[in-house]
Amino acid sequence: MNEVKVFCPATIANLSCGFDVLGLCLDNVGDEMIVRKSAEKGVRITKIEGANLPLETEKNVAGVALLAMLEETNAGFGFEIEIYKHIKAGSGIGSSAASSAGAVFGANELLGRPFSRKELVKFAMQGEKLASGNAHADNVAPALLGGFTLVRSSNPLDIIKIDSPNELYATVIHPQIELKTSDARSVLKQTVSLKSAITQWGNVGGLVAGLYTQDYDLIGRSLHDEIVEPLRSVLIPGFDLIKQSAYENGALGSGISGSGPSIFALSRGKETAEKIAKGMCAVYDEINLPYEIHVCKVNDTGMKVL
Amino acid sequence: MNEVKVFCPATIANLSCGFDVLGLCLDNVGDEMIVRKSAEKGVRITKIEGANLPLETEKNVAGVALLAMLEETNAGFGFEIEIYKHIKAGSGIGSSAASSAGAVFGANELLGRPFSRKELVKFAMQGEKLASGNAHADNVAPALLGGFTLVRSSNPLDIIKIDSPNELYATVIHPQIELKTSDARSVLKQTVSLKSAITQWGNVGGLVAGLYTQDYDLIGRSLHDEIVEPLRSVLIPGFDLIKQSAYENGALGSGISGSGPSIFALSRGKETAEKIAKGMCAVYDEINLPYEIHVCKVNDTGMKVL
Repeated sequence: MNEVKVFCPATIANLSCGFDVLGLCLDNVGDEMIVRKSAEKGVRITKIEGANLPLETEKNVAGVALLAMLEETNAGFGFEIEIYKHIKAGSGIGSSAASSAGAVFGANELLGRPFSRKELVKFAMQGEKLASGNAHADNVAPALLGGFTLVRSSNPLDIIKIDSPNELYATVIHPQIELKTSDARSVLKQTVSLKSAITQWGNVGGLVAGLYTQDYDLIGRSLHDEIVEPLRSVLIPGFDLIKQSAYENGALGSGISGSGPSIFALSRGKETAEKIAKGMCAVYDEINLPYEIHVCKVNDTGMKVL
Repeated sequence: MNEVKVFCPATIANLSCGFDVLGLCLDNVGDEMIVRKSAEKGVRITKIEGANLPLETEKNVAGVALLAMLEETNAGFGFEIEIYKHIKAGSGIGSSAASSAGAVFGANELLGRPFSRKELVKFAMQGEKLASGNAHADNVAPALLGGFTLVRSSNPLDIIKIDSPNELYATVIHPQIELKTSDARSVLKQTVSLKSAITQWGNVGGLVAGLYTQDYDLIGRSLHDEIVEPLRSVLIPGFDLIKQSAYENGALGSGISGSGPSIFALSRGKETAEKIAKGMCAVYDEINLPYEIHVCKVNDTGMKVL
């Protein structure tokens, strides 16, 4: 095998109550990437389509992630990477994570899988560090492992994969506005009330329990975030209307994807997910705000070779 | 059936990271209670052994809980209650909860079970309200349901029972000191750092995941409380030494039971639990502090008719 074509799925991090710890993998939204062996050692990004991103290895998240991996294994050859971006940068559904994780996943295949998917997470996190200054795992972990992932701890890294209930669908709407990560961060408060924190960890427990027992109602009852969402949602046009519309159309829960501006809703079954999408689109159509809309099953297997 | 004898188990609430939401039921530590039909309507506490508690129905947690239940059902008869206390009041292992839950459980049996165990929780909570001023469910829920319980929300009440992994044991040491609930409360801070809160809900997620997957190591890695324990543990003599000894003897985790002063450790298998008990006893023997020690399997079925 001299090259692999990889599907690099989009992901939803900061899943309501699971801010900074819970994420999920999407099924049919993602980038494609070709990773190829080359005689010349090292890593070269040879092509990027669909986005204006740096080709220099050290400035590209895919390049940086793969370089981190190569420090821990002996590759008898080098790598060329072609990236076909479909996930928009800054959309809040893990664009940089898809590239970071895709590069290490593809190279690992060409090397005969010296690393498990879970072991690849720490390398992909180096791409995230380049992108945001913070080596976080909450997008790269679901991209690599699929389903839901809980980052119980970042240091030491402790990631738990939780299978998705079979009928769980996500609807994601991406309003075409620019929301700077620095703005999304600056609205956060460094302290929270003990009362809200207890509510939040009760909901995290409920959500994890709901996932293991495939209890869709419990998942829905647990999908609340009373700490971060009230602060960040004001930065997203029409957030309350979109969320209200999602609930009216049968959503189990709805919230901000990543640090926004995308908004997600989870639901049981494709029909409901599509109904929710229609309702969300109508909200932005009404105010003439351009958007992208996605309806996907939760992807339980994660990144894959095409 | 004119009377039932009920085993009313002790419980551990505020389980490390699960402050205010996670509790568990103990197997062989508990009170006994006889609930008997009487021709005279209403509720009478006819006997209390092992503790100096009020016989007046309205001043007794068992009486108050049962009165709350009788408001929602038509009983053609009255009830007499005899209470045989073995759980010391103020020990931090759910003494009032055992009585509150025992009364409604026993009466429900005599009435032909009009209520499910989960439905009984809200009545038993009225006993807790009398005892502490706060109608909390984190002891009465595990006492009634067994295993682990997650109180996702108190209002509306939403309780999830989680089965215990089969080899899970608890060791509980009760130093014979008086720790006032008001003192245990007054040391709490009303705000916490966002960073600590995130760590805490990551651990709650990990603990719930560990219980569902019977992953003892994950349970152990998740049993940390960096919010309440550092504040309350200073009120408990030798806390750090007891905890250190528990870990040295193989505990998965250790923390304050309820609001103290009891200290618990969880472990895999009875042998380890007994080794931990020996180590804990040695710590208090060394400083000549009287104590009670318990080694129990986690009780997966809860309250029962004897």
